[in-house]
Amino acid sequence: MTGRVFTHCSAATLVEGERGYGLVEDAAVVVAEGRIAWIGARGDLPVDHAVWEQVDLGGALVTPALVDCHTHLVFGGDRSREFALRLEGASYEEIARAGGGIRSTVSATRDASDDELLAEALRRVDDLLADGVAVVEVKSGYGLSIAHELRMLRVARAIEGERPVHIRTSWLAAHALPPEFEGEADRYIDEVAIPGLETAAAEGLVDAVDGFCEGIGFSPAQIRRVFDTARELGIRVKLHAEQLSDLKGAVLAAEYDALSADHLEWLAPGDAPLLAEKGVVAVLLPGAFYALRETRLPPMDALREAGVAMALATDCNPGSSPLSSLRLAMNMGCTLFRMTAEEALAGATRNGAKALGLEAEYGTIEPGKRADLAVWDTEHPDFLSYWIGGRLLRGRITAGHYHDA
Amino acid sequence: MTGRVFTHCSAATLVEGERGYGLVEDAAVVVAEGRIAWIGARGDLPVDHAVWEQVDLGGALVTPALVDCHTHLVFGGDRSREFALRLEGASYEEIARAGGGIRSTVSATRDASDDELLAEALRRVDDLLADGVAVVEVKSGYGLSIAHELRMLRVARAIEGERPVHIRTSWLAAHALPPEFEGEADRYIDEVAIPGLETAAAEGLVDAVDGFCEGIGFSPAQIRRVFDTARELGIRVKLHAEQLSDLKGAVLAAEYDALSADHLEWLAPGDAPLLAEKGVVAVLLPGAFYALRETRLPPMDALREAGVAMALATDCNPGSSPLSSLRLAMNMGCTLFRMTAEEALAGATRNGAKALGLEAEYGTIEPGKRADLAVWDTEHPDFLSYWIGGRLLRGRITAGHYHDA
Ligand SMILES: [Zn+2]
Ligand SMILES: [Zn+2]
Repeated sequence: MTGRVFTHCSAATLVEGERGYGLVEDAAVVVAEGRIAWIGARGDLPVDHAVWEQVDLGGALVTPALVDCHTHLVFGGDRSREFALRLEGASYEEIARAGGGIRSTVSATRDASDDELLAEALRRVDDLLADGVAVVEVKSGYGLSIAHELRMLRVARAIEGERPVHIRTSWLAAHALPPEFEGEADRYIDEVAIPGLETAAAEGLVDAVDGFCEGIGFSPAQIRRVFDTARELGIRVKLHAEQLSDLKGAVLAAEYDALSADHLEWLAPGDAPLLAEKGVVAVLLPGAFYALRETRLPPMDALREAGVAMALATDCNPGSSPLSSLRLAMNMGCTLFRMTAEEALAGATRNGAKALGLEAEYGTIEPGKRADLAVWDTEHPDFLSYWIGGRLLRGRITAGHYHDA
Repeated sequence: MTGRVFTHCSAATLVEGERGYGLVEDAAVVVAEGRIAWIGARGDLPVDHAVWEQVDLGGALVTPALVDCHTHLVFGGDRSREFALRLEGASYEEIARAGGGIRSTVSATRDASDDELLAEALRRVDDLLADGVAVVEVKSGYGLSIAHELRMLRVARAIEGERPVHIRTSWLAAHALPPEFEGEADRYIDEVAIPGLETAAAEGLVDAVDGFCEGIGFSPAQIRRVFDTARELGIRVKLHAEQLSDLKGAVLAAEYDALSADHLEWLAPGDAPLLAEKGVVAVLLPGAFYALRETRLPPMDALREAGVAMALATDCNPGSSPLSSLRLAMNMGCTLFRMTAEEALAGATRNGAKALGLEAEYGTIEPGKRADLAVWDTEHPDFLSYWIGGRLLRGRITAGHYHDA
């Protein structure tokens, strides 16, 4: 077996339990067969690797490839007119008449062809790739019929054929109620969310099952029924919880051994230890907090004290988080949520991977993990959360091969 | 005289007084000798232009090239460590020991060579270019000695030789007090700010004179002395005013017929009519508001009611606004300051140009103005302020010639 050695770089390994990003100065990263074979100081490079091909990274910073663990980036249309109308002081009725709200995205998504949905999604994926992202979670939830929810997940999976990115799909039929089920949420759960999940799972389209547990979404009892089906199918769950109120969604998620509970602005501090105990990742979404001008912060101190793993994601969607930069989400995590710069990068790498159940494959630079890395035009990882805008990515290492960004 | 005609596009002309961005659907933009010769609906294209070379823009949106009218983008070092330390709860002393604050930027700027300053500035200029910017104002203010302030402006001017961008330079020696003048602000004004301005002006390096009028900056009386020198030299002024308190800096600026008063979070609503009367542009800087987690908004209603022209800029600087995306500043203007999407685009085009005294050359698509335009991969100008992150620019038209972005 031979591979190659990346040198003349510093490597932020993000290994759990290490401080200071697990930074290795003057590092050597050895890759073989698409995996990390060795990582350490160049001076300690084992002699059997020293003869392998060396690739000089010109002093760059290397981090694990970023993971965007919560997006809704397959959708039709956009909501820019609604955004503009709100700022002009338009009334709810005027916005509805102009076609606002999630239902406008549902109808635009239903009306779009698969090719159109894919082409639009690829633009947003390209934005994420430009920020060093290599793993993207994509949710359904704008189809809201069995056929259209399946179609969204198939389009999401098709992204992998077009770009160097690993896609994970989540079934989120319990996202909103389509107009044809107005006032009949339970019937929607029975006739769409549950049987659609069974069909999607049979087609192999579902990596996780998600729901929107909120007064304006679905009740804990309705979510529970979807999660029961997920459990029967052996599929892990995650939940949009405590974004706008405290319905104890995170507690429900923990009861079902969820991968993650997402948003959490209204999480009761006393519920944090349960998330830690059950290994549920807290996925923080400051882009939605920013765009919705929320003021209530997630209980950061309680999450930290309990030892809950905190991930960060874009929540890329046309309504509440029209954001396609994970690095900006990192800055918002720092600026708005007072995460440290190290928590922000861990949130976009190690803990993002954990929120997708991919911690054995992605999220740190450790032997055995995939050699999918981001190579940055900056000296120190602090800079990644500090600077707002611009392109800092110099290149990507994908399955052990370097490509310029 | 011949030129060319750009067709198959919509054009947001941003002409003053028009509503809806002055949008022309299915437009033709005629350019000749680097200037706009005609703009209107394609069906109305005058017959003498109809035989000129036509360039199909593939359905793109065309706007005036953006203008970033307030930046500090020539500087040495960065403040990412300080950013990270603050988030880790470091004390003021710990940050000072680690080399924080504006003085760390001053010493890094003084220590950097001209080539290093230029190379770093070009990275930030490239970020701005990627957002469709064609005019950038750059201030001195991290040199704080005559020699280093002059050097900053020479480096800023050198950007024009390296990139397709028009640079305007502002003398901002009255930005902060260097350590060697500790406690002697008046002596600094006498020995550096004023004689340095005279030297810089003699060298042709000064397009405008700026100051930081604040408790932690310079007093109105000190600013007044610098402005008196500017008046004698026949150079227009602008002022950092009312960012953290109300020292009546904007009133002072108006008294000197300033091009702009910048920041203005603490502007008294009653002072807005004076700005309108004197034609002083209000330059709003939501990036600094965001990064500093300010809560007091500029008096938007008073500015609107008085008819003050409102510009938007990045304030790109290493401390309070480490931001190199003018499109993100537009989104922040909407999200944080509740500007309309149209006000945001006017702020980054027409009113940005006005804040630099360049309204005859830039900022709208009108006959006689420079044919410097931004070509966007989007259908409607609302989208430019709505979407956060990503690259929307398809290409640039510079002096009438199209180039892919
Ligand atoms: Zn979501
Ligand atoms: Zn400034």
